[in-house]
Amino acid sequence: MSSQLIYNIGMLVTPEGNEARRGADQGRLKVLENAWIYLENGSIVACGDRNQPMTFGEKYDAGGRLVTPGLVDAHTHLIFGGWRQNELAMKIRNVPYLDILAAGGGILSTVKATHAATEEELANKAGRALDEMLSFGTTTCEAKSGYGLNKKEELKQLKVIKALNKNHPMDVVPTFMGAHALPPEFKENREGYLKLLCEEMIPAVAKQKLAKFCDVFCETGVFTAEESRRILQAGLDNGLIPKIHADEIDPIGGSQLAGEIGAISAEHLIVCPDAGIESMAQGGTIACLLPATSFYLNSTYAPARKMIEAGVPVAMASDFNPGSCPCLNLQLVMNLGCLKYRLTPEEVLTAVTLNGAAAIGMADRVGSIEAGKQGDLVIWDAPDLNYLCYRLGSNLVHAVVKKGNFYRGN
Amino acid sequence: MSSQLIYNIGMLVTPEGNEARRGADQGRLKVLENAWIYLENGSIVACGDRNQPMTFGEKYDAGGRLVTPGLVDAHTHLIFGGWRQNELAMKIRNVPYLDILAAGGGILSTVKATHAATEEELANKAGRALDEMLSFGTTTCEAKSGYGLNKKEELKQLKVIKALNKNHPMDVVPTFMGAHALPPEFKENREGYLKLLCEEMIPAVAKQKLAKFCDVFCETGVFTAEESRRILQAGLDNGLIPKIHADEIDPIGGSQLAGEIGAISAEHLIVCPDAGIESMAQGGTIACLLPATSFYLNSTYAPARKMIEAGVPVAMASDFNPGSCPCLNLQLVMNLGCLKYRLTPEEVLTAVTLNGAAAIGMADRVGSIEAGKQGDLVIWDAPDLNYLCYRLGSNLVHAVVKKGNFYRGN
Repeated sequence: MSSQLIYNIGMLVTPEGNEARRGADQGRLKVLENAWIYLENGSIVACGDRNQPMTFGEKYDAGGRLVTPGLVDAHTHLIFGGWRQNELAMKIRNVPYLDILAAGGGILSTVKATHAATEEELANKAGRALDEMLSFGTTTCEAKSGYGLNKKEELKQLKVIKALNKNHPMDVVPTFMGAHALPPEFKENREGYLKLLCEEMIPAVAKQKLAKFCDVFCETGVFTAEESRRILQAGLDNGLIPKIHADEIDPIGGSQLAGEIGAISAEHLIVCPDAGIESMAQGGTIACLLPATSFYLNSTYAPARKMIEAGVPVAMASDFNPGSCPCLNLQLVMNLGCLKYRLTPEEVLTAVTLNGAAAIGMADRVGSIEAGKQGDLVIWDAPDLNYLCYRLGSNLVHAVVKKGNFYRGN
Repeated sequence: MSSQLIYNIGMLVTPEGNEARRGADQGRLKVLENAWIYLENGSIVACGDRNQPMTFGEKYDAGGRLVTPGLVDAHTHLIFGGWRQNELAMKIRNVPYLDILAAGGGILSTVKATHAATEEELANKAGRALDEMLSFGTTTCEAKSGYGLNKKEELKQLKVIKALNKNHPMDVVPTFMGAHALPPEFKENREGYLKLLCEEMIPAVAKQKLAKFCDVFCETGVFTAEESRRILQAGLDNGLIPKIHADEIDPIGGSQLAGEIGAISAEHLIVCPDAGIESMAQGGTIACLLPATSFYLNSTYAPARKMIEAGVPVAMASDFNPGSCPCLNLQLVMNLGCLKYRLTPEEVLTAVTLNGAAAIGMADRVGSIEAGKQGDLVIWDAPDLNYLCYRLGSNLVHAVVKKGNFYRGN
């Protein structure tokens, strides 16, 4: 048995519990000064402050620094071939995404590059991204398929995620998102692709246990709310928990559907209407907000405050993908949460730890510093949580602890 | 004599010349593929492509990567005590900066902390910031005083800058900015501080050769345009080249003054009126834009495109300071240049290299990859300039070369 004591923690800050925090609770954190955390076999056994001294274990001096739970990135499109820097010029001219998509660019060029790559190539590339995410403080992430758009290629992506989860220190939680776009070969046959999704791909994914969630891009020009419902219901019928990309550009009913169908999370929600917020609150859906995408696309920002006030738990994630958000840095996402959503540092921390974990069904294992959870921590070159959210553009990670193993920041 | 050959450069991209590039020239870069750079004693002797092969020198394989000039950060408030993370809550509530200032927070709390710090403490702190800037690709920067606000303390800041320039690999170019705020003890005696600035501080700074430039914060609640003119004229009379913080919040005539007095640069220019752009174009003033500050303060963004169209050379810098922009990462500034100013990657590169160098009188030595200039380069983990501007939130530095010495990114 290995045992470790991280001591001389200037400030330990964490949300508490095994489920998403909502309303005023989103901003309520446990704060310990002069604290320590005791780990056994990579799991948290206890934490305390100088009033409950602890002396066991291999000692690690945190140097008076801030310690938080490891960050959880609940929304990434991690597995893809190629990049899309050649679209930057179009973005600068403010060409809308749906126009880039219609012009054969956008996601379809990534689909082509992903098809062309081998599993090993995809795993190597995504592995480098995971290394970098870890260096920025992320210890758990979600990863979606969705650049395959046929059975073989979607399964290929999901197999890469499975291999990464096994071989990389990061916990990588898989989501099937065959409904990321209508493949061009089904342009005149939407029903054909819906059938393929619901009757072949989803059952195959479920049978091979390659995904925990089923996601769909509910958006003008992609899938309607009714089509989304059908896909998510097929997922449910096969044991896949629903997620939904909703209200990113047009409010066509995605957030309402999220609450109705009991989606664990709805993503983006930039133009989420009040009825959608209400539906999510009733359905217990977590709002998984992606502010770096708003930043990158020069969109407005999701009504995060309104959601918190309505009792919808808010998570924040990177949306890392090669088109609308080539950013995997959750520290920048935290800055955006404060500066653009106007959330407090406490609400932001909950959004990228416990609520992120809850949005991917991992809140019983990660997302807070509590006895029984995994030893997933970040030791920050920061004296307090305000500093972490205030500094911009630097990597403030001093060390990342993943299941008790230490990794350096930069 | 040391000689070095950096070869296997996938793409070498650089502006050209010893002065600022304006208008369409701002976006005209020299591009060499399969290129090499030959250095002797830390200076660039030649560069070329496979058509002019070169074999001399200690060889360094750039691995097919992108190489650009080292970045130049032409506007920083590098030397300060303390941080101001406790103001984040006010920023989140959107309290205007001038209100924070009026409440005794803002710059005056930094003045207090800077007074309380020794030269050694300030140098150690700023040295760590310079290390980090270098790791992000900055090889030359400007640094302002302005948290002293009395003769002794302003000189202390400038001595720290001088020591850093000597002891740190970074070239650090000093600016006197005693006119950063009206010190509280002169609240009822503006004339007294103006006299102190013009008749004591500026002559002392000039005599001790502690600054190359004289800067002033021309803004509502700080210094009027007429006061600014008087201060900058005193600088000129003592051999200090004028710079001016103009039109950051209110357009009170700063940019017009910049052109009239022949300022080498005007800074911020968020609300710059047409008359100011016209004046800068006529006076040959460089617009030194600070988009990370707009981002941080949720301001609008300076009219960069209009300036380029009017023939005003545009530089971009970090504005690193503990209040309105705790960011020293010029890569993020480049992202903002593309995404928010809508400048092309080519225009952005010129803004953070040659035009930045010109804004601090260094364009004869740095800012481009040309024979006779210092061997200041960045080797990027990027295949091309579009990629460098497109990725967000990662440190893409593979290695930084400063006067021929190599430093790693992260």
